[in-house]
Amino acid sequence: MLLKLLDEKKYSTIKDMLITMNPADIAAVFEEVDEERTPLLFRLLPKGAAAESFAEMDPEIQQHLIQSFSDHELKEIVEELYVDDAADLVEEMPANVVKRILAQADPQMRKEINQILQYPENSAGSIMTTEYVSLKPTMTVGEAINHIRRTGLDRETIYTCYVTHMRRILGYVTVKDLLLTSDDDRPVTEIMDENVICVHTLDDQEEVAQMLSKYNFLALPVVDKDERMVGIVTFDDAMDIMEEEATEDIEIMAGMTPSDKTYLRSNTRELYLHRIPWLLLLMISATFTGMIITGFEEALAAQVALTAFIPMLMDTGGNSGSQASVTVIRALSLGELDFEDLLMVVWKEIRVAVFCGLSLAGACFVKVMLVDRMLMGNAAVTIPVAMVVCMTVCLTVMVAKVIGCTLPMCAKKLGADPAVMASPFITTIVDALSLLIYFGIARALLF
Amino acid sequence: MLLKLLDEKKYSTIKDMLITMNPADIAAVFEEVDEERTPLLFRLLPKGAAAESFAEMDPEIQQHLIQSFSDHELKEIVEELYVDDAADLVEEMPANVVKRILAQADPQMRKEINQILQYPENSAGSIMTTEYVSLKPTMTVGEAINHIRRTGLDRETIYTCYVTHMRRILGYVTVKDLLLTSDDDRPVTEIMDENVICVHTLDDQEEVAQMLSKYNFLALPVVDKDERMVGIVTFDDAMDIMEEEATEDIEIMAGMTPSDKTYLRSNTRELYLHRIPWLLLLMISATFTGMIITGFEEALAAQVALTAFIPMLMDTGGNSGSQASVTVIRALSLGELDFEDLLMVVWKEIRVAVFCGLSLAGACFVKVMLVDRMLMGNAAVTIPVAMVVCMTVCLTVMVAKVIGCTLPMCAKKLGADPAVMASPFITTIVDALSLLIYFGIARALLF
Repeated sequence: MLLKLLDEKKYSTIKDMLITMNPADIAAVFEEVDEERTPLLFRLLPKGAAAESFAEMDPEIQQHLIQSFSDHELKEIVEELYVDDAADLVEEMPANVVKRILAQADPQMRKEINQILQYPENSAGSIMTTEYVSLKPTMTVGEAINHIRRTGLDRETIYTCYVTHMRRILGYVTVKDLLLTSDDDRPVTEIMDENVICVHTLDDQEEVAQMLSKYNFLALPVVDKDERMVGIVTFDDAMDIMEEEATEDIEIMAGMTPSDKTYLRSNTRELYLHRIPWLLLLMISATFTGMIITGFEEALAAQVALTAFIPMLMDTGGNSGSQASVTVIRALSLGELDFEDLLMVVWKEIRVAVFCGLSLAGACFVKVMLVDRMLMGNAAVTIPVAMVVCMTVCLTVMVAKVIGCTLPMCAKKLGADPAVMASPFITTIVDALSLLIYFGIARALLF
Repeated sequence: MLLKLLDEKKYSTIKDMLITMNPADIAAVFEEVDEERTPLLFRLLPKGAAAESFAEMDPEIQQHLIQSFSDHELKEIVEELYVDDAADLVEEMPANVVKRILAQADPQMRKEINQILQYPENSAGSIMTTEYVSLKPTMTVGEAINHIRRTGLDRETIYTCYVTHMRRILGYVTVKDLLLTSDDDRPVTEIMDENVICVHTLDDQEEVAQMLSKYNFLALPVVDKDERMVGIVTFDDAMDIMEEEATEDIEIMAGMTPSDKTYLRSNTRELYLHRIPWLLLLMISATFTGMIITGFEEALAAQVALTAFIPMLMDTGGNSGSQASVTVIRALSLGELDFEDLLMVVWKEIRVAVFCGLSLAGACFVKVMLVDRMLMGNAAVTIPVAMVVCMTVCLTVMVAKVIGCTLPMCAKKLGADPAVMASPFITTIVDALSLLIYFGIARALLF
């Protein structure tokens, strides 16, 4: 609708509509407008919403807008941005645009942006904002409230305030605590909570997000290696990180290189490049299964019925293995499991595998005898053949579950991403093993 | 360490330690203590932390504690709980415990608990809390602040306040807006934001969580079908839901019935029951692949080299398909895609599939000729055989990608969970199709 109004040049109507919209929704509109008209649309935004909407937009649109801005316009936007959003922006833009942005930021902001940028990607330092409310230990409740009222405008969150001395955190008070204290003359040190939970600048962003979620905090303070407070991470960033990390895990588990871009914004080339390396790698590693089959070609020629069960055995093994691996990977990324739990996990999976293996083997026997032998009248499917198949199912499930739970934990121990050890990888390994088990048992019982 | 102190009966030291701990951490300690001693430990908790820690504990521990409480102790805890936590508790407990809990709640709370419980599971109504701050439109900023200071103690969040008239929402103000307004005599209606984004009681909890995350709100108001405000959903619940829903998706994608319990808390029987139905179903459906192979047994006997490539073809097809399906499933659950986008998605996947298919076919040809024919000296792998394999790879990848992206979207359209259409399911279908393609091409070119 907005696009139609833009075609019809009904600018004042658009202006009125934009006033009623949220920054996230405004940013979504910009994705639908063709690029040449984004600067025009941007100038229709109400003053207050411009910077916030800008922060929510795609990097490509941001870059196009900045290139259309005069220095004065750019200065206005940059000044309105929160420091963490400004740092994100600088990180995404090409060098010449970054130069322009930093030139328009005031020296204090430039310093803070540079401080955030010095931390490695995905660390607490790189996602924090340096704009938080700090209170002096000498303040009273009344003074603290006044301090917040005076300085709160530029702060990303005013609701959790940190009582600091020489930048070391003595405690925190929430605005709720302050407001609900009836005596304005009480010192803040009396009502502050001294059990401060904080994270270090180099901590992984995933851990930080999980801590925020675990403790239901609005913000977590970030301290440097000397335990001095340098910033805060807020709940909204934690939510984005949780979503991002879950998507990343899911992509890796399905054998893809994780992407920062959403599906709709990724073009064919990007999707191709994220998928082909894994497909190639997994295809090449299937050479081993091919070699195993070639090695047993004579046995297969003698007992043709064996071939028909290969896909079922491979799939069942792969599915059992990925159930175990995916469960363990998720538990690892939620911080529930550690390498120390390996034996406990293996023992648990073995017990589950015994029950799953026996049930599947039983069901398989019934199915093979009923469907393959009786219904389809395949005389080559003898009872010994059925027994070989069922024993293979049972053993494969056990091997698959143990490998499925062990590999992700070892990957974590070695500092790799456990999610790599999910379905596609496990499947390739389990395929080869299930064939070896199959032909091993067949050789022992049938020949 | 705490456990050791408990053995040594150093209760006052434990008390001092518990004071410094967060509710989430206290709840974690209770999971490690043997059940008989939980009531003793609970009585050592500082008054203020008892209810909050209680809300964070496992249902089994909660039940054991309640059974050890006197009516008076129970009343104290129940009164301190937030209404949404109390409703969660009532939902988890057996009937006789529920009766005791409701008997100890005051009539107002009982009414509110019952109201929350009437909404279907996973709806906005079932996760909301009825404790929010509402302001009258006639209030000034100063009066609003005083109102919050007087009534805020029982409210889950005081930071977003809703200006309501006859329970209809006129707008919202944040405590930040109120505090930063220098003129205490301004009416709240002047500073409130009238663009209220709200959810309905029956909306899905996943959508609610995503809206909170999208708009970076601390809380979202929940309205009933007459647009009257009945509660709020807060960011901390949204975080838990996001984590839960991602775990659920991942579990379903790996062919498991999703579980409310964490891995560590699930026993062998529960893990078995969550996994075996899918394994059985997928094993039985592999009958079709078996039937296809049996149907082509003679062809395979005539060209034994063909068998060795079956695992590679099946795996490559399965991997390609699950890449597409998992990407689409994630985009669907993040609300990025809709059924209307089906054609666009299919077209995108076809383009990606053509490039992936051609690359894989090329690589496959080189691999087959170099490794299988020259390195391993398998004379049965002729150029026509290699061509059959490569053409199958290319076609299978295309079919797999199209099926992989189409099925989840159709599932969504039909009201089923798209995550069901992930790897295991796609693999089973693609297996059968890839074999049909393989034998079809083989028959045309080789016989």
